[in-house]
Amino acid sequence: MIYADNAATTKMSAAAIQTMVSLMNENYGNPSSLYSLGQKAKETLEDARKTVAEAISADPREIYFTSGGSEADNQAILSAAALGRKNGKTHIVSSAFEHHAVLHTLEKLKSEGFDITLLDVHENGIVRPEEVEAAIRDDTCLVTIMYANNEIGTIQPIPEIGAICRRRGVLFHTDAVQAIGHIPVNTATDQIDMLSASAHKFHGPKGVGFLYARKGIRLTNLIEGGAQERGKRAGTENVPGIAAMATALKEAVANMADSAAAMKKQRDRLITGLKQIPHSALNGDEVRRLPGNVNFCFEGIEGESLLLLLDDKGIQASSGSACTSGSLDPSHVLLAIGRVHDVAHGSLRLSIGDDLTDEETDEIIRSVSEVVTYLRSFSPVWRDLVAGKTKFIL
Amino acid sequence: MIYADNAATTKMSAAAIQTMVSLMNENYGNPSSLYSLGQKAKETLEDARKTVAEAISADPREIYFTSGGSEADNQAILSAAALGRKNGKTHIVSSAFEHHAVLHTLEKLKSEGFDITLLDVHENGIVRPEEVEAAIRDDTCLVTIMYANNEIGTIQPIPEIGAICRRRGVLFHTDAVQAIGHIPVNTATDQIDMLSASAHKFHGPKGVGFLYARKGIRLTNLIEGGAQERGKRAGTENVPGIAAMATALKEAVANMADSAAAMKKQRDRLITGLKQIPHSALNGDEVRRLPGNVNFCFEGIEGESLLLLLDDKGIQASSGSACTSGSLDPSHVLLAIGRVHDVAHGSLRLSIGDDLTDEETDEIIRSVSEVVTYLRSFSPVWRDLVAGKTKFIL
Repeated sequence: MIYADNAATTKMSAAAIQTMVSLMNENYGNPSSLYSLGQKAKETLEDARKTVAEAISADPREIYFTSGGSEADNQAILSAAALGRKNGKTHIVSSAFEHHAVLHTLEKLKSEGFDITLLDVHENGIVRPEEVEAAIRDDTCLVTIMYANNEIGTIQPIPEIGAICRRRGVLFHTDAVQAIGHIPVNTATDQIDMLSASAHKFHGPKGVGFLYARKGIRLTNLIEGGAQERGKRAGTENVPGIAAMATALKEAVANMADSAAAMKKQRDRLITGLKQIPHSALNGDEVRRLPGNVNFCFEGIEGESLLLLLDDKGIQASSGSACTSGSLDPSHVLLAIGRVHDVAHGSLRLSIGDDLTDEETDEIIRSVSEVVTYLRSFSPVWRDLVAGKTKFIL
Repeated sequence: MIYADNAATTKMSAAAIQTMVSLMNENYGNPSSLYSLGQKAKETLEDARKTVAEAISADPREIYFTSGGSEADNQAILSAAALGRKNGKTHIVSSAFEHHAVLHTLEKLKSEGFDITLLDVHENGIVRPEEVEAAIRDDTCLVTIMYANNEIGTIQPIPEIGAICRRRGVLFHTDAVQAIGHIPVNTATDQIDMLSASAHKFHGPKGVGFLYARKGIRLTNLIEGGAQERGKRAGTENVPGIAAMATALKEAVANMADSAAAMKKQRDRLITGLKQIPHSALNGDEVRRLPGNVNFCFEGIEGESLLLLLDDKGIQASSGSACTSGSLDPSHVLLAIGRVHDVAHGSLRLSIGDDLTDEETDEIIRSVSEVVTYLRSFSPVWRDLVAGKTKFIL
């Protein structure tokens, strides 16, 4: 089996599993408890907070553990909105291809009277800093732009956007779910005020993530109740999961350079190989993209059939975000970079790990080529294209 | 070591750990993915939903997985409030000794214009159904009463309250975090509309819980984004954690009768033994309480010192809820049953497991007696009591 859907979820690292298992077996105390078992759990929790903070050049007191990236996105945006409303600022700048955890939260705020500007991401899938600057108004309370896109992997000019926001005095949040553990993220030099991350995207456990919020930013609770996470996120802390996330993140950061180099090599082989398929196109900038992300459109086919046939050949990939699978709408990300509906339907996302071999890469290229040819052989859309009844776009 | 703080958190069962580890190692797919690994994860998820539903006599489509009990409480109450507001109903009935996940959410709603009635729980720590009935008004949109109290373990007359609410057409939610897996809970015969539960209270993992919401009840999202949990709770599902919760719950339900009998035996030995300590009193009804809960007040001492000295003797217990530890306020639960501040400060909660032996029970009784005597030996409060300068209450 070749697993090429690491943007949907990753396999946990052996070390992260080991951390989790040893805590579940031995150090199972509630970190809010006074006795030794509880205090040991508390230490483990705070060690994890330190590790996570270090990985993004933040202070441990700026790290709030959550149940994942979606929760962190929701809490960050609602917190900024609450602060904004207090100061009469109800305008938010974002982009058209954010994750739904961001877009749906913005829609909710829109229904509550907020004004939302969604910036264009252009053909290359990259937000332009000058357009962020131009969109900021006197009543802007938040700019939220993802670090790297979850479907097409394009990396956004975060330091430039951070600098603009800092200069203009506007809070800047970034959904860094796809970036953390994969490319360097530094909240200090990037001038990020809030950041969301999810453990299972960097070989940590599912159901755990974190929100970084710069000191002085008052968070709004999504979950009210106990005094955990400095009163900002109630519920008994998932100590085994949090510690396993820290283990995975530490590993990911330590191996980042080697891992990225290995992935980039195979990514570029894949891109070169898949480009040979006629009427195909890479989605998103070829250079400014995540080391492990390859995303293509193939004219005249359905992405879903492509995935199922690849699965038969032992290749596990996706057409885009896992969060919206089952939906018949084409990807909002592909539409945002200007793909028309029909073309957007024929997409393939390969998000590889750092252990992919040359042979496996070749096998992916061969399999995709075969399956695309096969699907086109009985596609009425393709027949019309070949017959000249409709025009090729790619 | 004797671990007697199972109401704060439990040790995971070996079977639950096994479920979790095997999923983390092998079946790590994203259940929203089309390919086989994803579909296998989806099956695991839906099997878990079936198991959880069966345990409380619900339909699988009525189970929404969450990150824990606090999240479930928040979502249930905010959902009922949103439905109420739509119909012009902004009155909620609850009790004075609910968990803070409930009380703080109600406070938030109060600040948004809701009217909250907190019923008395009387000396025995039990809400009276007739007082629930009397409190319901034409504009009542929700009654939320916990199944069993987390500090003093008293079991509430849930079937009676459920019947009243159903008859009066008011939604009924119960925070069943302490009950699920410990005493029988049947959402059908209890006529419960919404129920919250947390896995780590019944030997499942931390960071996982569920919300049961009867068919037809439209939930409000706390977390917006993906289409997971029928669109009501975004975020990649924590499949290993959810499956481990199902394993633990199935085990707990299967062993419930034996386990409860074993705990009740030791509970009652503890109660009899600790009553021998002069000027002590059991908190909460002696009979209508959780099989594993013992909660005492000892006059003239500080609960915190008691816990630390017991910890030195290898006994891990608490003074009340773990969620508010670190706070100097006395337990709102003990105040609600009429304990005065000074007495409430001298409380001890022992929440035992079903593996406690006679010898361990005797050791607890001996240790608590010794520590209470020791602490009283230099307590100025105790000196004044003995000298008759202040009056004994207990």
